[in-house]
Amino acid sequence: MDGWKLICSQFDPANESLREALCTLGNGYFATRGAAPEASANGIHYPGTYIAGCYNRLTDTIADRTVENESLVNVPNWLALNFRIGDGDWFDLGAVELLSYHQELDLKQAVLKREMRFRDGAGRHTRVEQRRLVSMDQPHLAALETCIHAEDWEDTIELRSALDGCVENTGVARYRELGSKHLTPLTATSLDPDTMFLEVVTSQSHVRIAQAAVTRLWLGNESIAPQPTVEKSDGLIAHHYTTQLNASQPLRVEKIIAMYTSRDRAISDPGLDAREAIDTVVDFDTLLRRHTTTWKHLWHRFDFDIEHADSDQEEQAEKILRLHVLHLIQTTSPHVMDLDVGVPARGLHGEAYRGHIFWDELFVFPLFNLRMPEITRALLRYRYRRLDEARKAAQAAGYLGAMYPWQSGSDGREETQRVHLNPKSGNWLPDNSHLQRHINSAIVYNIWQYYQVTRDIQFLSFCGAEMILEIARFWASITSYNEQRDRYEILGVMGPDEYHDAYPDAEQSGLNNNAYTNLMAVWVLLRALELRDILPGQRLTELCETLDVSADEFARWDEISRRMHVPFHDGDIISQFEGYGELAEFDWEGYQEKYGNIERLDRILEAENDTANRYKVSKQADVLMLFYLFSSEELGALFTHLGYRYEYETIPRNIDYYLSRTSHGSSLSRLVNSWVLARSDRPGAWPLFMELLRSDIEDIQRGTTPEGIHTGAMAGTVDLIQRCFTGIETRGDVLWLNPRLPEGLNSLTLSLHYRHHVLGLHVSRTCARISTEPSSEPPIQIGIANEVHQLKPGEVREFQL
Amino acid sequence: MDGWKLICSQFDPANESLREALCTLGNGYFATRGAAPEASANGIHYPGTYIAGCYNRLTDTIADRTVENESLVNVPNWLALNFRIGDGDWFDLGAVELLSYHQELDLKQAVLKREMRFRDGAGRHTRVEQRRLVSMDQPHLAALETCIHAEDWEDTIELRSALDGCVENTGVARYRELGSKHLTPLTATSLDPDTMFLEVVTSQSHVRIAQAAVTRLWLGNESIAPQPTVEKSDGLIAHHYTTQLNASQPLRVEKIIAMYTSRDRAISDPGLDAREAIDTVVDFDTLLRRHTTTWKHLWHRFDFDIEHADSDQEEQAEKILRLHVLHLIQTTSPHVMDLDVGVPARGLHGEAYRGHIFWDELFVFPLFNLRMPEITRALLRYRYRRLDEARKAAQAAGYLGAMYPWQSGSDGREETQRVHLNPKSGNWLPDNSHLQRHINSAIVYNIWQYYQVTRDIQFLSFCGAEMILEIARFWASITSYNEQRDRYEILGVMGPDEYHDAYPDAEQSGLNNNAYTNLMAVWVLLRALELRDILPGQRLTELCETLDVSADEFARWDEISRRMHVPFHDGDIISQFEGYGELAEFDWEGYQEKYGNIERLDRILEAENDTANRYKVSKQADVLMLFYLFSSEELGALFTHLGYRYEYETIPRNIDYYLSRTSHGSSLSRLVNSWVLARSDRPGAWPLFMELLRSDIEDIQRGTTPEGIHTGAMAGTVDLIQRCFTGIETRGDVLWLNPRLPEGLNSLTLSLHYRHHVLGLHVSRTCARISTEPSSEPPIQIGIANEVHQLKPGEVREFQL
Repeated sequence: MDGWKLICSQFDPANESLREALCTLGNGYFATRGAAPEASANGIHYPGTYIAGCYNRLTDTIADRTVENESLVNVPNWLALNFRIGDGDWFDLGAVELLSYHQELDLKQAVLKREMRFRDGAGRHTRVEQRRLVSMDQPHLAALETCIHAEDWEDTIELRSALDGCVENTGVARYRELGSKHLTPLTATSLDPDTMFLEVVTSQSHVRIAQAAVTRLWLGNESIAPQPTVEKSDGLIAHHYTTQLNASQPLRVEKIIAMYTSRDRAISDPGLDAREAIDTVVDFDTLLRRHTTTWKHLWHRFDFDIEHADSDQEEQAEKILRLHVLHLIQTTSPHVMDLDVGVPARGLHGEAYRGHIFWDELFVFPLFNLRMPEITRALLRYRYRRLDEARKAAQAAGYLGAMYPWQSGSDGREETQRVHLNPKSGNWLPDNSHLQRHINSAIVYNIWQYYQVTRDIQFLSFCGAEMILEIARFWASITSYNEQRDRYEILGVMGPDEYHDAYPDAEQSGLNNNAYTNLMAVWVLLRALELRDILPGQRLTELCETLDVSADEFARWDEISRRMHVPFHDGDIISQFEGYGELAEFDWEGYQEKYGNIERLDRILEAENDTANRYKVSKQADVLMLFYLFSSEELGALFTHLGYRYEYETIPRNIDYYLSRTSHGSSLSRLVNSWVLARSDRPGAWPLFMELLRSDIEDIQRGTTPEGIHTGAMAGTVDLIQRCFTGIETRGDVLWLNPRLPEGLNSLTLSLHYRHHVLGLHVSRTCARISTEPSSEPPIQIGIANEVHQLKPGEVREFQL
Repeated sequence: MDGWKLICSQFDPANESLREALCTLGNGYFATRGAAPEASANGIHYPGTYIAGCYNRLTDTIADRTVENESLVNVPNWLALNFRIGDGDWFDLGAVELLSYHQELDLKQAVLKREMRFRDGAGRHTRVEQRRLVSMDQPHLAALETCIHAEDWEDTIELRSALDGCVENTGVARYRELGSKHLTPLTATSLDPDTMFLEVVTSQSHVRIAQAAVTRLWLGNESIAPQPTVEKSDGLIAHHYTTQLNASQPLRVEKIIAMYTSRDRAISDPGLDAREAIDTVVDFDTLLRRHTTTWKHLWHRFDFDIEHADSDQEEQAEKILRLHVLHLIQTTSPHVMDLDVGVPARGLHGEAYRGHIFWDELFVFPLFNLRMPEITRALLRYRYRRLDEARKAAQAAGYLGAMYPWQSGSDGREETQRVHLNPKSGNWLPDNSHLQRHINSAIVYNIWQYYQVTRDIQFLSFCGAEMILEIARFWASITSYNEQRDRYEILGVMGPDEYHDAYPDAEQSGLNNNAYTNLMAVWVLLRALELRDILPGQRLTELCETLDVSADEFARWDEISRRMHVPFHDGDIISQFEGYGELAEFDWEGYQEKYGNIERLDRILEAENDTANRYKVSKQADVLMLFYLFSSEELGALFTHLGYRYEYETIPRNIDYYLSRTSHGSSLSRLVNSWVLARSDRPGAWPLFMELLRSDIEDIQRGTTPEGIHTGAMAGTVDLIQRCFTGIETRGDVLWLNPRLPEGLNSLTLSLHYRHHVLGLHVSRTCARISTEPSSEPPIQIGIANEVHQLKPGEVREFQL
């Protein structure tokens, strides 16, 4: 087993879509999956190429309800390439006798390789090798190299290379009832014997997408240029090349494409730019060389090394962690620095959630912050550009400030579905998940973490602070005062746990005093107040004047931050929300016996005419999120500020309480559980970590990965290595360390970026060693075991644990 | 005279287009000029609204030559608003008897106000007041308020409010032969009795431009809503409202527009976004309030105060300097931080130079660097996005690295005209100005200055350094070794002085060893070498690997930087280029007598079948640029590094030599001359400064200002106050001061930004006082009279001069 290669030696049609998701190649600008060359000439097989930030709205009527469906657009298929021998059938993997099959995702190079041998109906033996890349060096380019070896035959071979704009969004089975045609053809033309051009426009958002492709052929080492016949139809252009092939030398085909959209910068017109770009491309190997160099630098940035007692586990863990890093960088690479994109919950790997942006950046940014914070900066600007829309949403809902939506797309408006289908019952049900206002606190948390890691006062001044103040204002305005309690409350919202969206039998949706929501709101208010000490005076004055924030408003935020209500039950169990303690206990064993997989208990119960709202059950971590986001020290300070008692033992008691009442119907939930268990030194932490690692690669949620990988969970696993096991916390201008290696893990080595320093961190069971590269940056503060130490450029420090 | 108001109390049709240019309103996203309400219903008058970064290419055939014409696009006219009494003629300023006229550009508020009284053919008296703004707070919005007072009549009044997409680019007379129609109509529709919508698309670049407008009417304080009749044609939509008017109360009309283009971010579709934005606008006064607050903050940032012995001169200077600041911010406001735009040589104020980007940022950035460097950062990213195009240009010309074009537009390719017309002779002549390779050094200079002021290592790492290395590589590759001289040379280029593009009677164009070009190339090579000490080690390695820069290449740059040839003649006169000393002296007096204005000597000589190439004449500063960009100390170091002798007296001798041989056919030339004279303590510095100040406001180049203001010269005048009179230099991590107030100027007070510090600087004839606002930033270094002092946050230092 090679720790840098994801290998599959069997062709298994049943698992093909999972493998496609895992082998999707991308560069932050676009990502491409697909099964060429077994795609037949008329495109039976489903490939997908998605462009970052390219959405389209469609309105559909389903079950008499109007559903607005904002989709990650599947753009023209550039992989379309097939061949046939003589005038036989087009090659089809399913119709030949496969003699060998080898597929390899090279993680180091971000190249997908495939090799297969087959015998066709006429008894001929053929070998096909293919390499594919989406350039990390030149984000508009991608390339496919195919070699066809006639092992024991001689005949003409016809090659078809196409750009196919007739694709639809059909990657998720249950969305197929919804509108799926997003592209209108504009131009399909052959420019040269080796060059084709295709341009389409998205139907609603009018984004022009242009592809130019060059297809070049070699027989052995000799370049050949057969005159193509041109196939052309609405939205499709193909070149057919015919040549003679025999066993003496293989046919090698390079297909390189350039893709531009009208949302790109520094262009005149996407069509013109695509054509000009393809004019100057050299060849596959040149592209590959530059692509590999860029990936080498990325791997150096995102490097880590783990040492485990069991070397198999070590290799497996490293390989999967690298796969996760690969997919995260492919989704939000350095190229996003100049794009207007967020962090899609499912990457650019599939159509699930229609490309929507949720709160997943909360789980992704901590990884990027300490490796390449410039990426976080760009992605936070995506939120900043949508601040006005969040202001409108707050106003429309009767609140002040800015209220970011639970799900959003191109223009930042609320895109959460209003109804959803329970496939178990066939019922369309109202969907209240837009009440998850806690996403606003996640945004502030992200801004704050980014600032703590980088001290980027420019970003904070011009973007971050404005969002923090407006979100603080929103929290203050949604808060009401309960005189009896002499406490502030937040009513009618949902926490992260989506099983609970209302009180049983209540007419209104939403719950009161969700503990996570309330505590995060307090934390946000405290950060807004802290801005007064951080921002340059002039900028603070400007902001307060522009937003009309008065001293009285700051005073009110301070007051709420000290008197927010947090519900408890059974002593120090933090109630998920007010009244949670009075809900019925659930018959976990009975249901498990009856249904087997009960991850989606909500659907099971609804189909039984019951509701999850009646029970102490959670789809995912809710209270536990607090222990994920905050160290015991910070949480303690928060409770003390609110005038609540807080003991360290509160944490394990709450963890045990909620873990035994959670069904894990979410990939993020497993992550949070692993985290809190690891931080509380449980023996099961490593096995749980290994299980978590397998969630996408083995599709443990049964069918969700083929619809798109889970960005948040993938990042979270790497962050378990990076921040959880090391106990890294960036708070109060100090980089805190508090290592807790799970049983079996002997040591960890990481390369980190903190305040323009490049740090080397090595943690073993007995000591932590931290070093900085020489530079002209000011010293940084390292905190360990309640003591703060200064670290200058070029220094090394070692701490006994 | 009010120092914050540009007032005109006479309507003078001959000067109207100059006033329009000076009164153009903008917000960095778009700018609008125009003469409504005297625009008649069928649009006789020419208004212009330009969107930043929106270009269109057209190809024309003129005099049998194909001319590609890239144009700043004039987008639909939103100002179109007129009225008529009863069924009389539409109001036309030229057709009524004007009783009074008052136009006022309020610099503090960035609002244009107009008031006029007139008597029409029927003897009726009417008063019209108008206010107009382009919102600096919400960049997609603009508003026009019109009040019509019937002084002595009672009748129906018909109001026409239109969005007119039938506009063409006809703002520059001599371009009218070129294609001028850039817009294709898409949609023109009435959405509501008060709302219209228009969408067009640019013909070649396919940029969609959508405008939605709301028109609201009041009689006195009472809102009225007459049902409009709708006028509609291809690319035009108008609402006609008819109501009864009498002397008891005026008719007040508010027209507010929202404009979006498909190049905007965080949108779904520009049409949708424009319609949604106009749905939520409140009213003119609310827009004005927020607009004014934003401007208050901008004025606070860009504040200055001068004290002159002559208070009239003081007020006049302050007013014009504010006008310049206003226009600069309107062209490149904080809103450009999220746009892909450069610094257009003529702002967004007119169509001259077709919106092209030249080297003017060299004169603009120093102002922004010390006030709001975040703007510079954004504008430098515009260059970075076009680095690939510059690489292609270098490659196409046979060089290595990146060669930025002299003129460029949307996609960064060379847009310099290949032929130009001499209106004096009627001849079309080849244009060699693309040989001005020195623009590449200007880009490096800009990056370096920005870095020196901000120490923004993130920008340098990810954008700046790559441009510097690639430009250094270009200079090294265009350099050839002259064995005889044992010196390196740069042959076949043009310096800034456009009178000289070849040797007399030479077949080839270009000149050898232009001193400015050679010395700047050396300076660039030195900066590229210095990067090795500044960049974080990891990033340097990455860059060198990606760009394939080897130690040998660095060594070659070092070698060239020590042995570049600089030509001299007449002792220590730096030859503008090799052979300049042998050119003929020019008969200045004779030609002045014969032609009067000889600013464009090149045209005069060409029409006489002669050429400026034969004479010691300059259109503009060339050698003098060196004294503008570098302090005597830095220039001395450069010459010493090259092994040339350098004395302080070299500077005044060169200044005198070249000033007496320059015709000032460029607005930038006057700036550079003022600068070098002021730095060399000449008594004429202040009068020359005052003359320079008047160049745009009085259109001293006769007709160029109405075609668009001169961005570089405007910024340069403010920078004379900011850096020249104070002797500010940001070099080697030190902020150097070396004040030289011109005679008559008693003191200067400025607010500056330097490395996240807000500084107060007060310079009088006897002392310089510098203070920092309290902050948590590290101390900065202040240099004065060869000594460096540390300044901590919250400190004040005073230095006797």
